[in-house]
Amino acid sequence: MSASFLFDLDGTLVDTVYQHVEAWRQALTADAIQVPLWQIHRHVGMTGDLMLTALARELDLRFTDGQLDRVKQQHEAIYQQLTTDIQLLPGAKELLASLTDRRVAWAIATSGERASVQGSLDRLGVPDGVPVITGDRIEAAKPEPDIFIAAAEALHMPVAEAFVVGDSIWDLLAAQRAGALGIGLLTGGYGADELRGASAHRIYADPSDLLRHLHELGIAE
Amino acid sequence: MSASFLFDLDGTLVDTVYQHVEAWRQALTADAIQVPLWQIHRHVGMTGDLMLTALARELDLRFTDGQLDRVKQQHEAIYQQLTTDIQLLPGAKELLASLTDRRVAWAIATSGERASVQGSLDRLGVPDGVPVITGDRIEAAKPEPDIFIAAAEALHMPVAEAFVVGDSIWDLLAAQRAGALGIGLLTGGYGADELRGASAHRIYADPSDLLRHLHELGIAE
Repeated sequence: MSASFLFDLDGTLVDTVYQHVEAWRQALTADAIQVPLWQIHRHVGMTGDLMLTALARELDLRFTDGQLDRVKQQHEAIYQQLTTDIQLLPGAKELLASLTDRRVAWAIATSGERASVQGSLDRLGVPDGVPVITGDRIEAAKPEPDIFIAAAEALHMPVAEAFVVGDSIWDLLAAQRAGALGIGLLTGGYGADELRGASAHRIYADPSDLLRHLHELGIAE
Repeated sequence: MSASFLFDLDGTLVDTVYQHVEAWRQALTADAIQVPLWQIHRHVGMTGDLMLTALARELDLRFTDGQLDRVKQQHEAIYQQLTTDIQLLPGAKELLASLTDRRVAWAIATSGERASVQGSLDRLGVPDGVPVITGDRIEAAKPEPDIFIAAAEALHMPVAEAFVVGDSIWDLLAAQRAGALGIGLLTGGYGADELRGASAHRIYADPSDLLRHLHELGIAE
């Protein structure tokens, strides 16, 4: 068995989900669109396009093309303002370093665009040579499996033996569709049952809790 | 049976939980205190004092008295900036109006202070004569039962026959301690199992979903 780890980024390794919610709120409000915030929260982790499509369907809204583009650009600008100082989630850096030390392969697979995730990668100190698959490189977004399949390919590892670590049900649903096992973290603000309902293999509070329990995934000391 | 409804405010009738999270984040960051945001989210609904005590214990932080006061004042100021335009949750106004039409007694019971909740009460159009119990009037905050007991007393109704409607586990735990039945709403961003784990009698998506199912609580047409 050659296990590898494919990490989501926002809400999994860096504490940015709530700033995404706030940025979407401000962007939508600026366009006079009103959406309950818990429903925005539950769609973070999708690409912006897919999230807005989902909200439009669930809330019976209609966006014009011009509105969609405006709201997405606004979100991006406001998000950058809100995240001048990106905070790591507890244990994120230590978890990645520990995997590297143990020669366990890992990659990053995020719906975000390369330009907007660079700050998070810098804060994490992701070494050169670690594959980083971003939303702009992949046509099909989570919950489609493509992004995790591409990440496993970049590692030259079988996706069926990969652990996908994520904070949202979209990560876990995509993991299952890729044939990988999903590991849920509570750091994105989902409850444990929501992650379990999306077929989480195991659930941990945060990266440091996962690090303390790596043996449960068969990673030896 | 003389049922009454005791409503939490933030996250239950008005869509303000995520702005509270963002305001706490900015207030704590301004004081160089780093707290994962999902853990802030899970304590919204307590008073500021109790939340900061909880975070200090759970994260092994130490706040000085000066820091506590500064962070609370900052939170209040930032929250006011973020909520110049308070959004109602779907069906909130209609639910309250429907109860009034049916001559079902209801009250508001919130941990917030009177000054900071006035905007929400105005947006909801809470009529004169409806009791509004705020955190500054009650010594013991949720999850202690006092605020709901006081609200039932103000209605001259038995708290044991009251439905407490809230979005957070603190509302539901306080309801149980008051001997009332808790009705959980998903609008605060908790998952259904978290609400069920805090003894919710029933769970609905939002006020409009509760309004459509009032018969489940024995409220006749």
